Amino acid sequence: MPDFLPSLDSLAAQQAAQRLDRLTKPPGSLGRLERLAVELAAIQGQALPQVSPPAMLVFAADHGVAAEGVSAFPAEVTAQMVANFAAGGAAINVFARQHGAHLEVIDVGVATPLPEGTADSPRLVDERVRLGTANMLHEDAMSRDEALAAMVAGRRAAERAAAAGCRSLIVGEMGIANTTASSALLAALTGASVEGLVGPGTGLDAAGLAHKRDVIERTLAARRPDPADPLEALARVGGLEIAAMAGAFLGGATHRLPLIVDGFIATVAALVACRLRPSLRDYLLFGHRSREPGHEGALAALEARPLVDFELRLGEGTGAALAFPLLDSACRLLVEMATFDDIGIDPAP
Amino acid sequence: MPDFLPSLDSLAAQQAAQRLDRLTKPPGSLGRLERLAVELAAIQGQALPQVSPPAMLVFAADHGVAAEGVSAFPAEVTAQMVANFAAGGAAINVFARQHGAHLEVIDVGVATPLPEGTADSPRLVDERVRLGTANMLHEDAMSRDEALAAMVAGRRAAERAAAAGCRSLIVGEMGIANTTASSALLAALTGASVEGLVGPGTGLDAAGLAHKRDVIERTLAARRPDPADPLEALARVGGLEIAAMAGAFLGGATHRLPLIVDGFIATVAALVACRLRPSLRDYLLFGHRSREPGHEGALAALEARPLVDFELRLGEGTGAALAFPLLDSACRLLVEMATFDDIGIDPAP
Repeated sequence: MPDFLPSLDSLAAQQAAQRLDRLTKPPGSLGRLERLAVELAAIQGQALPQVSPPAMLVFAADHGVAAEGVSAFPAEVTAQMVANFAAGGAAINVFARQHGAHLEVIDVGVATPLPEGTADSPRLVDERVRLGTANMLHEDAMSRDEALAAMVAGRRAAERAAAAGCRSLIVGEMGIANTTASSALLAALTGASVEGLVGPGTGLDAAGLAHKRDVIERTLAARRPDPADPLEALARVGGLEIAAMAGAFLGGATHRLPLIVDGFIATVAALVACRLRPSLRDYLLFGHRSREPGHEGALAALEARPLVDFELRLGEGTGAALAFPLLDSACRLLVEMATFDDIGIDPAP
Repeated sequence: MPDFLPSLDSLAAQQAAQRLDRLTKPPGSLGRLERLAVELAAIQGQALPQVSPPAMLVFAADHGVAAEGVSAFPAEVTAQMVANFAAGGAAINVFARQHGAHLEVIDVGVATPLPEGTADSPRLVDERVRLGTANMLHEDAMSRDEALAAMVAGRRAAERAAAAGCRSLIVGEMGIANTTASSALLAALTGASVEGLVGPGTGLDAAGLAHKRDVIERTLAARRPDPADPLEALARVGGLEIAAMAGAFLGGATHRLPLIVDGFIATVAALVACRLRPSLRDYLLFGHRSREPGHEGALAALEARPLVDFELRLGEGTGAALAFPLLDSACRLLVEMATFDDIGIDPAP
């Protein structure tokens, strides 16, 4: 992982802010769009930032803890949804087409065989570190080396996106039972109570929810993840796709790519990455506020305010992708609007 | 104006809802996007609604009350900004290009001459009813017939958009001093106190704000607009572009076009139109929550929840345009996503 990340470019930010005040509108009247434009300029080191085209990276992996019955769907759905991503039929594919994104599905540890033909898709990248994590209730989800290998796979995906000319990164995931792993990891890193952050995931009922909470609490008691060692915590109670997302964030930041974080699982991955490299926080934008209750705690741990509040709880990167055009709008205004000089209005009447 | 509006299509809505439950995602996991898709289906009378391409209609007019010094900018800026819209340099033009919109600037009453060359723009439509309203502090802003003529001009713009194949309507405005007229009209229609709803518009300071409030209160005392006669209230304390927007909303609804309302002024225009034809409310979607304080009251009067909260206070239709891709996403998901049947997953595990 990168030893250091590039600093924000305060000169580019200042140039962007000055240009915003010359555009044909009352100063500040574009509200949050103006602040986002300045933030994107600082991240990219360019007075006229550009987030399009975006890359959408969907990391997929399975979770041994799914055997405890913590999800409304069976583990095989991970492989089936990977096939759906590869074929272009999932929600994230729709958004990728809408926004002209470069979409990749990276298999970092799907446990069951992918449906026939899936491997032939140009969208699919095989980076399997292992066939799903172990059941963290009984043993560490993975080794420290495996967590690191998954992070490196994520970093490689970010580097491919940068090399392909992508100007921003949308990072999402698929993995049955990964709200269970993310909840355990968030509780481990922040000390928050499991009760407050465990939610229905893809659709548990009340009994299922109580069982999920119990599994997480017993897991934390058995694994004792240390918040002072985020990589170790990731290995003990995390997931391969969570590690890969953390790696993708760090890799994207080294290339000065604005990072659009999706919902609960992606935010927990971003938190892990920030614990490893705190200056990563400067590169993060938060797409949406998820309906999964743990997301609130994860956002609070990163002092994050999401762009959109649409009560999504799907993952895949959909919440980040939904918010993408708002960032694109911020950039386009800065580049394309006329200035008061251009049209001969006195800006300070 | 239309005597009645078409009813929502509950069958199309039901078909859309049923399809949403078969798409490859946990039921309801796309949150508000799912509810919007169903709402759009009901409006358009199609199980697979489509909001793209949108029309962006910007209505411009001047206000006699600007002579009282209620705006941070001089009245001439209305004409200068019309020229900017015609030349493609304003914020709304940027969004129009981003979203592939059909943009029209409709001059329903700009008082000062348009800069040379502006009239040649194919984007500009001349529908001047009169050269700005009268100063409502001293006399009615316009006659009832003039208000109606401006509404008809708005309806014609909506009809042109429908004829051009546009699938949704974004309605915005430009008019120096039009937050003053909108505040007066909102207070008249809802009985709200002027103090709570008057804001800085394009950028008044505290003294300017107090003066604006005083002008509005004296106007209301002098004009005595009757909330039971919305057209009369519009004529007494409204504006030509406000009347035109109300007409555009009504005209758009007759063509089953989803109507994306912009900020404070557009929402007041929508409220006027709803007072004239209450079933119009079914066709309205609200783009954003403006920073202008009166917007909250206008939204409350229509029981509206905006799509985006970005603290814009520019007008032109920019807040509605900013939110447009979220509605487009809702439609695209419904059309393009695979169903569980398509990929062989059991949707009810």
